[in-house]
Order: sequence, then structure tokens, then C-alpha cells
Amino acid sequence: MNILTIKKLKRIVIIGAGFAGLQVAKKLRRDKFQVVLIDKNNYHTFQPLLYQVATAGLEPDSIAHSIRNIVKKKKNFFFRLASVHYINTNKKEIITNIGNLSYDYLIVATGSVTNYFGNKNIESHALPMKSIPEALNLRSLILQNFEQAILTKDTQKKKKLMTFVIVGGGPTGVELAGALAEMKNYVLPHDYPNLDIQNMEIHLLQASTRLLDGMSEQSAKQAYKNLENLGVIIWLNCLVKDYNGDVVFIKENKKIQTENVIWTAGVKGAIIKGFLKEDIEGNRILVNQYLQTIRYKHIFAIGDVALMKINRYYPNGHPMTAQPAIQQGNYLANKFNINCFFDNNQAIKPFIYKNSGSMATIGRNKAVCDFSFFKLKGFLAWIIWMFVHLVSLVGFRNRVIALMNWIIQYFQYNKSVRLIIRPFHKKKKVI
Amino acid sequence: MNILTIKKLKRIVIIGAGFAGLQVAKKLRRDKFQVVLIDKNNYHTFQPLLYQVATAGLEPDSIAHSIRNIVKKKKNFFFRLASVHYINTNKKEIITNIGNLSYDYLIVATGSVTNYFGNKNIESHALPMKSIPEALNLRSLILQNFEQAILTKDTQKKKKLMTFVIVGGGPTGVELAGALAEMKNYVLPHDYPNLDIQNMEIHLLQASTRLLDGMSEQSAKQAYKNLENLGVIIWLNCLVKDYNGDVVFIKENKKIQTENVIWTAGVKGAIIKGFLKEDIEGNRILVNQYLQTIRYKHIFAIGDVALMKINRYYPNGHPMTAQPAIQQGNYLANKFNINCFFDNNQAIKPFIYKNSGSMATIGRNKAVCDFSFFKLKGFLAWIIWMFVHLVSLVGFRNRVIALMNWIIQYFQYNKSVRLIIRPFHKKKKVI
Repeated sequence: MNILTIKKLKRIVIIGAGFAGLQVAKKLRRDKFQVVLIDKNNYHTFQPLLYQVATAGLEPDSIAHSIRNIVKKKKNFFFRLASVHYINTNKKEIITNIGNLSYDYLIVATGSVTNYFGNKNIESHALPMKSIPEALNLRSLILQNFEQAILTKDTQKKKKLMTFVIVGGGPTGVELAGALAEMKNYVLPHDYPNLDIQNMEIHLLQASTRLLDGMSEQSAKQAYKNLENLGVIIWLNCLVKDYNGDVVFIKENKKIQTENVIWTAGVKGAIIKGFLKEDIEGNRILVNQYLQTIRYKHIFAIGDVALMKINRYYPNGHPMTAQPAIQQGNYLANKFNINCFFDNNQAIKPFIYKNSGSMATIGRNKAVCDFSFFKLKGFLAWIIWMFVHLVSLVGFRNRVIALMNWIIQYFQYNKSVRLIIRPFHKKKKVI
Repeated sequence: MNILTIKKLKRIVIIGAGFAGLQVAKKLRRDKFQVVLIDKNNYHTFQPLLYQVATAGLEPDSIAHSIRNIVKKKKNFFFRLASVHYINTNKKEIITNIGNLSYDYLIVATGSVTNYFGNKNIESHALPMKSIPEALNLRSLILQNFEQAILTKDTQKKKKLMTFVIVGGGPTGVELAGALAEMKNYVLPHDYPNLDIQNMEIHLLQASTRLLDGMSEQSAKQAYKNLENLGVIIWLNCLVKDYNGDVVFIKENKKIQTENVIWTAGVKGAIIKGFLKEDIEGNRILVNQYLQTIRYKHIFAIGDVALMKINRYYPNGHPMTAQPAIQQGNYLANKFNINCFFDNNQAIKPFIYKNSGSMATIGRNKAVCDFSFFKLKGFLAWIIWMFVHLVSLVGFRNRVIALMNWIIQYFQYNKSVRLIIRPFHKKKKVI
């Protein structure tokens, strides 16, 4: 079965509607190309705010946007809800669960998945937070464990239910720890007046010597201080060896008893089958400075899954975050639009990543921002963080709804969507 | 295991946090009683707007409200997330999945469940819409079937995927049919430009001779006209005999081929085990004019599950809607609060239901309202419908978010949350 029969123009197939794939899809000129965007979901996920869904601050529908809504009324554009099994590079087609699709140009923008560094125990017991269903599972688990804690007389068990271990001190881990700490300080004591909230412990475990490795030393220290003030227990130089669903084993024979481990310690490229081993390094697809795969002239990779090693500022590849993804999508769309088919690379300007800064929020009135020429912290940084995230959200409705939620939360000291819509069952982790 | 050990005052246990249960829980004086509210969800569901969740107009979190948030900071109040297995009337305790709980007074407010009138085929193939997960399943199914329709070359199959049969012409059926028709008219043609939207058929099947049986003839006619103008195919005097997942069989050998049957044709009381057969009629618990069960002085029933037959205006019981539920909750709380323990009924004023009107919306600018002295239709009725539903929603946040969604939808002619967050699998209908 061919999943798309209409064809007049050269067909560009994009796999993945994350930041990178969506950007290139939106920017490609549709009078020149037929564009087919494929994703396993019918929505784009704004991943930077997943932690707020997990901590009952935002409803999931505020950070998701229907892909068909984004591209509606655009001609020569097709969306297909499908999972790609592999790429047949010889036939120039992709094989999916809904049929095969030929391409003239293929853009792989499959993003990344949670990296458990090969530890199967951790993978089966810890909770990831890379997708909306995963964030909702986490939200359900937090609330279910509190409901269970009020019924438990065994004090050790009670404490385990109320202990949260976040592994990974990057922006996701820091923001999640901060949001959980605010739940502890403002929300949960009212919900569970008969529980001793002091039993609730939030641990943030970081393998390196400091938090927020990608940001400045100054911002890392500020985040550390803010989290400590909120009551988060921070472990630096702390490597997790194992987790059996009950106890987190840390190097040097330390351990933490907990039923809640959230794994934000790393991601790896979401590779698609069809590439040769030599074309992949550390689970990312090697690309040249034009984002073209090194073996196939007609295949490109952008975003988290792409690894460009030639750049002298980023010899190990660009950071696996939204910014490089969006810029790469932009770059590729522009190059295609100006009739540059990458057949002869000499005349093309290579892709250069412009780091426009990075930021992380810790809680109300608390954030850190690093820009090229200055750094910010506190209230102003927090306002900038909110502004940047609001304008980056896809869709007018989502921006309005997220803003209203934030305003109401700010004045009510509340996180309203503490709802267990679909209970989480540990044994059935897959959605 | 006893699920609650603290006890000083007389304990009133309420089963169910719907309109009735929540109302009595909120109103009971906590200096006089210890109140325990039990529900199988940790949130209250605003059922009148479920159809908007199903048709991508509202996110689920806007019509749900955390029960703990409603009653936070209230002393002598306890919420337990539990399913009640049965009532041991001799021991005066309830048996739940988390343990037993004794009561001094018990208020059964378990509401109602979808009534398939014993047809197992329909039950396993049709979709109900009585809970948030069910509404989300419906949302997913509608979108999944459209995604499948664009891939289907078999024209008969394509049409079946795009044909919607709503069984039941009460307010829920009418409102759902109207919302689906608006999706057909404004939203889906943009999302699926390569599908012939004329293939999308919306059938509304009503067993009686007119729509909206509970409302005036005039309003029923107006709703009929509005729905017809929106393109809904209405079948009156139409009894569904069977549905096999493929074909709806109607009396007199008519049939409709469809993969989407939504069952809003009836509800029945959600009975709890522990009552004698004689105390139940048509799946509702018989109560006297004080909402007291006929056999047990200490057990009361309110809302959909209660059947009071003595009232001369409602000889077959009150309508199974929000209004009687709320009024009954209020009545019972007030009576308890003024030290009236129903041991001697003589001095107590019986419950009298005051019908303050009924309404249904058909689509933008279209609604019908019946009040005691006047009837309304069109734009003004629609504004009133929205206002009444907004103020009835629980929680300031929910009101603000629902209002913002409605305003944006109104100007954008859009229903934004067309998201398949958790795909629906027909074979795994239970959540």
C-alpha cells in the first residue's frame, strides 16, 4: 500500500514533528515541493513544559498542538500519522506501519529518547518524562502515592511513597525539582493535612560537580541556592548504580529508599533503521556542515538526532535542545527554497549555530538566564523565562491558556490540575 | 484495615462526589460531624460538558476539579480515593478496596451509569460518554477514524469511518450531534482537505416522537430545525435493535453502516451491593420524602441513584440530572445541620424539587432554554446557556479556562484540542 498517491512536484518527506521537523515543514515553499510530514502522534509536543504537566501546573492540552491545525489550508502539504519502521535507501522509500512512501529528499528529525545508559533495572522501574503520556503517568503516580501514603501505617513504607528522587541535574531535573518542592511547600499540606509533610523528601542527583552543566557557573550556583532554600536535597558527584523499584543504589554504598525515581539524566538520538553503522555515532546520525548525511545525498538529519562534528565550537555536536533544532530546520528550509539541492556543496554556506542563551526556572520569582553579554537571576529572569516559553508555545490558544494558568497559580499559590485521569500502573508502563 | 481511625464526632460517610455528593459534603457543618467523602476518582466531573471534551472543544482538565482542592483547609473532613464493594447494613460499615469504614449516617450518591438495556452487543461496540476517560476515548476515536479514512481506498469502508450515529435525542445527544456537525462544517474540511467531507454523516436516533423529551415542544422543534440546518440526519420513532461494530440495525429492517456509535440513550442508577431487592426499583434506591431509604434509618440516597415516588409531580422519580441532585444534597445537609437526625420524621419538611428550567445548546449562537414563565431560543439562549454552565463549573480556574477556550473558538471557528493523547483501542475499551 502506498500511503500517498498524489504527486507532481519533488517530494520532501520529513520524519518527526518536533521543533526541527515542524520548523522545516512550516518554512518549505509549497509551490516548489510536495511536503509530507510524518509523526507517530497527531500533535507537536512542547517538551520544555512537560515538567509542569507532571506537577499539575498545566493541562496536557496546553503544551500540545494539533499538527493538522498548524498546517491547515497549506497546499501540497500532507500529514501522515504513522510510525516509520525503516528507510530503504536504495529504493528511496520509507517503510511505515501504514505503508511505503517514496521520497526525493528525506529529512530525519526523529529527536531523542530517554537514555538509561543500558541499565534495564532503571529502565523498568524509573519514570521518564519525554512525552505527554509519560508526564501524565508521573502526575498520576505522585498523586496515587500520596493517596496511598495516608492509608499506610508502616512509617518506612509511608516515607518511601513520599520520597522523590530526580536523577539528572540539567534544566529538566532542576525545573522538576523546583516544581515538586513548590507542591510540597504550598499545595500538598492542604490536600493531605493528616500527613506529616516533613516526610516528603525531594532528592536531586547530579553526576557531575555542578548543576546545569550547559549554563554558567554563576547560574548553576544560583539554582543550587534556590533549590536548597526550597528544601531540595542536592547530591553532586553522585552516580546512580541501580534502582530496583524500592532502593536507589548510589556509588560508595549510599542508598535512598523510594518508590518514585524520575529519570532525566540523559537522552540519546532516536535512530531509524536503514543507516549503516559507520554513519552513526553515539546514537546520532553523522551529518556534514550542510546537515546532509555523509553517505546519502538525498537524506538529511536535523535536531537531536543529527551529529555535526566539524563545528569547532561544538566538536561533539550541538546541544540536544530546542534551539539548534529550530535553527537547523530553518537553515534547511531556506536552502531548499533557494533552489539549492545540495548536489554540489561548494556554493552553499554551512550551518552555523547561534547560541542565543539558555535559561532555567526554579520556582515562583526564581529563574536563571545566561545570555552572551549578561546573566540574570531572580524575578526579572523569571519573567523573561515565562515570556520566552509563552511565545515559543505553538498556537494562540495554548499561549492564552498557559498564561491564564500561570497568572491564577501565581495568586492562588496553587497547582490546580491534580487529577488522576488515567491511573498509572507500574507494571504496564507502556501507554 | 480500617481506612480512617480518627473519630470524635458522629461520622457521616458520603459515597460519590458528583453533583449530589459534593453538594452535601460542602454544606455539612463540620463542627457537628466528621465527614468522609469517598469516590473512585480524585476529581469531580462536570458531566454536562463532557461532549465538548469529546469534540475537541475543551481540555479534560477544565471540567474536572480535584476533590481535595474543593475541601482543603476544612477540618473534620476526609476524602478517600476508593471503590465501594458493598454496604454491611448490620454492622453499619462499608467495605471498600482499601478497607472497611464504619458510619453513623451513610449517604449514597453514586449517580448513574450508561444503560444499554441489556444489549451486550451494543455495550461492547458502542461508545458511552459518562466519564472523562470515555469522552477522551471518543475524541481519540473520531480523530483516529479520520486518519484512517484518508488512507482507505475502499469507498464503503471510508464512509463507514466517517459516519457517526448518536443514539439518544436527549440534551447529551443533541449537544453532541451539534458539536460534531460544527466539526464537520468548520474544522475537519481544513484538517483533511483530501477527504470529501460530504461522506461524513451524523445521524441522531431518537426512540420517541420528538427530541429533548424533558423540554417543551417548542424547544424540541427549534432544536430539530437547528440540527437539520447544521446537516444532522434525525431519526424519530427509531428504535435501535442491535449494533455489531459495523452495522446499526434499526426496527423495520433499516440499517446504517458505521464504525462510530455513541450511546447516549439512557442511564440507570449505579447501585451498590447491600440493599435488599425490595428496596430497589429500576436500578434506583427507593427513598421516602426525606431522602431516607425505606428500610434503614441511617442510610440516605440522593441524586440519580435515588428514587422518590411519592412526589405527585414526579411520580416516577425526579429527572436524573444535575439540578435535583444539587437540591437533594442541599436539603440533606441543611436538615443534618439543624440537628434533625430523621429519627422522627414528623417534624421535618419533606424534600420538594424546584425545577428552575432546562436548556440545551445546538451550536454557536444556537440554544434553547425553558423557564417557568418564558422560553428562549437563539443567541440570547446561547449566552444564558454559557453563563449558567460557566458559573456551575467547579473552581475559578476551570471557569476562566473554559471561558477563554469558548471565546477563542468563537472567533477562530476552531476546536483546538484535536489531540490523540492516548489512542483508543476498540478491544481494550475499559481504561
